[in-house]
Amino acid sequence: MPKAEILDQIARKLRIHSLKMTTRAGSGHPSTCLSAAELVACLFFDEMRYDIHDAGNPANDEFVLSKGHAAPVLWAAYAEAGILPEAGIYTLREITSDLEGHPTPRMKWIKAATGSLGQGLSVGVGMALAQRLMKSPARTFVLMGDGECAEGSVWEAANAAANLGLRNLCAVVDVNGLGQSDRTMHDHDLAAYSRKFRAFGWDAVVVDGHKSGKILEALAGMGKKGLPTVILARTIKGKGVSFIEDRNGWHGKPLKPEELEKALKELGPMPHVDSGLYVRKPRPFKGKAPAGGKGFPKTVYKEKTATRLAYGYALSALGKADPSVVVIDGDVKNSTYADKFFAAFPERSFQSYIAEQNMVGLGMGLAAKGFVPFIATFAAFLSRAHDQVRMAAYSESNIKLCGSHVGVSIGEDGASQMGLEDLAIFRPIPGCVVLYPSDAVSAEACVAAAAAHRGMVYVRTTRPAVPLLYPAAEDFPIGGSKVLKRSDGDAATVIAAGITVFEALKAADELAKQGTPVRVIDAYSVKPLDEAGIRSAVRETGGRAVVVEDHFEAGGLGEAVAAALAGEARLRHLCVRELPRSGPPSELLDKYGINAAHIVAAVKELCGWA
Amino acid sequence: MPKAEILDQIARKLRIHSLKMTTRAGSGHPSTCLSAAELVACLFFDEMRYDIHDAGNPANDEFVLSKGHAAPVLWAAYAEAGILPEAGIYTLREITSDLEGHPTPRMKWIKAATGSLGQGLSVGVGMALAQRLMKSPARTFVLMGDGECAEGSVWEAANAAANLGLRNLCAVVDVNGLGQSDRTMHDHDLAAYSRKFRAFGWDAVVVDGHKSGKILEALAGMGKKGLPTVILARTIKGKGVSFIEDRNGWHGKPLKPEELEKALKELGPMPHVDSGLYVRKPRPFKGKAPAGGKGFPKTVYKEKTATRLAYGYALSALGKADPSVVVIDGDVKNSTYADKFFAAFPERSFQSYIAEQNMVGLGMGLAAKGFVPFIATFAAFLSRAHDQVRMAAYSESNIKLCGSHVGVSIGEDGASQMGLEDLAIFRPIPGCVVLYPSDAVSAEACVAAAAAHRGMVYVRTTRPAVPLLYPAAEDFPIGGSKVLKRSDGDAATVIAAGITVFEALKAADELAKQGTPVRVIDAYSVKPLDEAGIRSAVRETGGRAVVVEDHFEAGGLGEAVAAALAGEARLRHLCVRELPRSGPPSELLDKYGINAAHIVAAVKELCGWA
Repeated sequence: MPKAEILDQIARKLRIHSLKMTTRAGSGHPSTCLSAAELVACLFFDEMRYDIHDAGNPANDEFVLSKGHAAPVLWAAYAEAGILPEAGIYTLREITSDLEGHPTPRMKWIKAATGSLGQGLSVGVGMALAQRLMKSPARTFVLMGDGECAEGSVWEAANAAANLGLRNLCAVVDVNGLGQSDRTMHDHDLAAYSRKFRAFGWDAVVVDGHKSGKILEALAGMGKKGLPTVILARTIKGKGVSFIEDRNGWHGKPLKPEELEKALKELGPMPHVDSGLYVRKPRPFKGKAPAGGKGFPKTVYKEKTATRLAYGYALSALGKADPSVVVIDGDVKNSTYADKFFAAFPERSFQSYIAEQNMVGLGMGLAAKGFVPFIATFAAFLSRAHDQVRMAAYSESNIKLCGSHVGVSIGEDGASQMGLEDLAIFRPIPGCVVLYPSDAVSAEACVAAAAAHRGMVYVRTTRPAVPLLYPAAEDFPIGGSKVLKRSDGDAATVIAAGITVFEALKAADELAKQGTPVRVIDAYSVKPLDEAGIRSAVRETGGRAVVVEDHFEAGGLGEAVAAALAGEARLRHLCVRELPRSGPPSELLDKYGINAAHIVAAVKELCGWA
Repeated sequence: MPKAEILDQIARKLRIHSLKMTTRAGSGHPSTCLSAAELVACLFFDEMRYDIHDAGNPANDEFVLSKGHAAPVLWAAYAEAGILPEAGIYTLREITSDLEGHPTPRMKWIKAATGSLGQGLSVGVGMALAQRLMKSPARTFVLMGDGECAEGSVWEAANAAANLGLRNLCAVVDVNGLGQSDRTMHDHDLAAYSRKFRAFGWDAVVVDGHKSGKILEALAGMGKKGLPTVILARTIKGKGVSFIEDRNGWHGKPLKPEELEKALKELGPMPHVDSGLYVRKPRPFKGKAPAGGKGFPKTVYKEKTATRLAYGYALSALGKADPSVVVIDGDVKNSTYADKFFAAFPERSFQSYIAEQNMVGLGMGLAAKGFVPFIATFAAFLSRAHDQVRMAAYSESNIKLCGSHVGVSIGEDGASQMGLEDLAIFRPIPGCVVLYPSDAVSAEACVAAAAAHRGMVYVRTTRPAVPLLYPAAEDFPIGGSKVLKRSDGDAATVIAAGITVFEALKAADELAKQGTPVRVIDAYSVKPLDEAGIRSAVRETGGRAVVVEDHFEAGGLGEAVAAALAGEARLRHLCVRELPRSGPPSELLDKYGINAAHIVAAVKELCGWA
């Protein structure tokens, strides 16, 4: 039988599985599986090379289902390939099943969760880049929807792929012309997509997405022009089932049992082809991502240093010790000081330009292949990649993020540049570690802790240079805190982090002079918070606590402490409560109520002496 | 004197002002002002029409400085136009000055804060659309940097402008080839930008950005092809000052006083031209954005209804009463139920396709011109527009956002579709109102409250249909809460919102049967929270409180209550603490610990009876 005919039969099997799985589950997106059936068949059973016994084989071609709602067709392909038992796929969407409504890494072949559209291409860029760094002959394929091409993140990724010259990357767009609620912007105008991808530096090929032979031909041309390749496939949503083909209103809707019966009649019996025979094994390749190193020599600091600068020095030292570390920055490397690493290790440094979404997605792709990416920009601009960060969490991604220039302490550049909501982005993420160093020594230690921890870590750094607080050898374990002032007669505990630690110390000196000693805690591990340590300090200081932070009121250190202390303390929370202005840092700390004078006043008020 | 020569002289004035302002301030971005000087001169002193005495005149052409770090040249232009006193601009970046480091609406001509790059074009799309809706002859101009063209949001906006056919929109890109830390991806390859914009459906013109005559010619062609127009201007960063021209390392760096002196010598004396003479008055036009209406008739609900569906019905009723209301949705209108409004008022309904960043930016532009946009998508996907939401806050924008499909209660679609961090996005924003209705009646009331409130409001809606709790006439003021169960012997207060209100009521019934009555509060106004009401309820119930919410632990209702109660209660917080799975809603509510059974257990544990 000609290969195209075999693939047509496999596509039919994928269609039948997808329809039956979603009807059984009572929810899901069958119509989008039907449009992609030939594309998936051609990829999984002819073009791609992978070892069905080893999801982590570095010689495997990688696949990202950017249109994550087509999960059923992917689970069906894995079943046909022999990776999943066929009966297993019929557990789709059950609470104990790892085959979820959208792909997550609970199913071990999934290296990046998808389901928020427009993100898969960036992950693919990162994987293809990782393959190149590993000198692997393997390639990366990303199956996208046409609707998601409206997402700007797709064009950030397209830019990056062309700029990096990733000829080992192939995007396949299932242009079925229908979104969830309407026809897409370009409907079946494939030339419109072609113009866009070509303008962004890609080789673009238009094919009939239901003709396996044509799809194979297009795939064979991948990378031939030295560019990333996009295959724009004209397809029909619901293809193969006459009463849903190309009809609006069938997105995310399973067939009813009687409709399924009718559809299965139209599709004909399940073909007898043994799909597993057509899986191609990977080319021999023994390379892998470099193994991580252990620790790094600390810089000896002697003078006032910004934590962001220490981040840069720490990265360089880490890079020497650990060849798996790669660094990405969004055209602010001379501000985040990632430039120290760029200068030392240009081959492991990636300029993301001003494209924060792709920066995080690229990092996810690199992390999925075993690298340890440190990704930095101003904390304010990480909000641009919040959805990617969210999906990185669901991807259980081992990325490390650094947000610099936090809070009003940046000064005159003004509110748009101040990270005042970043703690509220990272604290909600289950399992995410949030570190907020106050001085250069703790900043280096936080970078070391981030590298050693498996999972997402956020490091918050500050713009101004600040004095040294800690000896070089000090240890900063995740989940810890530091008591910087203590006496038996402490009247209250002041809990600070980052820039406000210095204000808390000043306030403590002033209060001590006035005969009111206070305890000062550096809560550098914002999450996990040292709840026990803070609770016991507060208990020892009359149940009085003041939290002071350079962050908006909600979602930051203050609420973390309030939750930890609930019922055990009287708490005052000093934080930024309005939209701040441009101005000198010291004036802003005063105006927004988070400097030493305000801490002194809060302690006095708490003690009833105000 | 030929016009081009006059404009060259004005450009020289703008350069001198920008350099002097930033040196005086000791910070800022002079080099990016110098590259844009002729572009700004040509726009403000020839092409644009505006009434210097009335920033709100609907006949004014609008201007958005997307490259917000060039604020000094904008303040200089306003001074030259006679809008600001010349001496005033030398207060740049002082804490009491409204002329901030990046533009904010504290200066009344600024309708959208900028400084997070790549956002201005979307705002411009919204403004140009508003002008068309108002049948105004006025136009919108957006000055962009080349570096920010790497942001995907620019391409979302480009798509939207072409799709909407906005021939009254002109983007001017200052292609100086230098980013902050490196040369840009395309450096001075203007053809690369031209290809991209053309592929996205724009008319693109390349000019020398330092030749006023050429710029005027290009501007004269605006809209002639019936398309949005982009003028790609080849410029030199630092133009006019030999020792900084086209040099890396001069981004965000003012000249030192001695360097300024040298630069001013090179530029020559301040020209004597009276720039104000060249400001063009607007064309006569009396139209304006429609005035808002008052209230709307409520739907009479009789059966179980999802709050998201009530959102849709409420929008339709509101749309009839209030012609200023416009609706935008990101290709999920059949899920958010914005489609009810789309059907009733197609001319005020805008399909944003799957492009959430542009959706919010477009809304900001419409709001800036007096419309009241209601913007909806799945709550999870509002994270995609977090940076735009952040900038909308700094813009003091009157946008209303709705996030549907929140929490694990959406069920089988899985974690990527669950809004579990949306409260942590909106609560930190100073002044943002956050409403979270539990039933259809409260959902309609929340829409009414959102419309009546001036400023950003977020409404959180739920997927499943739920019973009716409230009579149709019930009032839901911002900042209020509802006591749904109360008795003198209440052992604890259960604070819930949205879907968990029903679980709290079930738990209360069960506990009452067991002889432990509890108070139940519907905290529909998550922000401002009814702190006094909650505190007094908790005080009356033995200082025991249980908060239960379908949201991650940090940044949501639980921490809001913890902060409000600090020191006055023993609190248990039931919320989603891990990455959730696909599954049936009721099983997920149980698995993640937020259903009635878990509330019962928490109350018993709090009371010491567990």
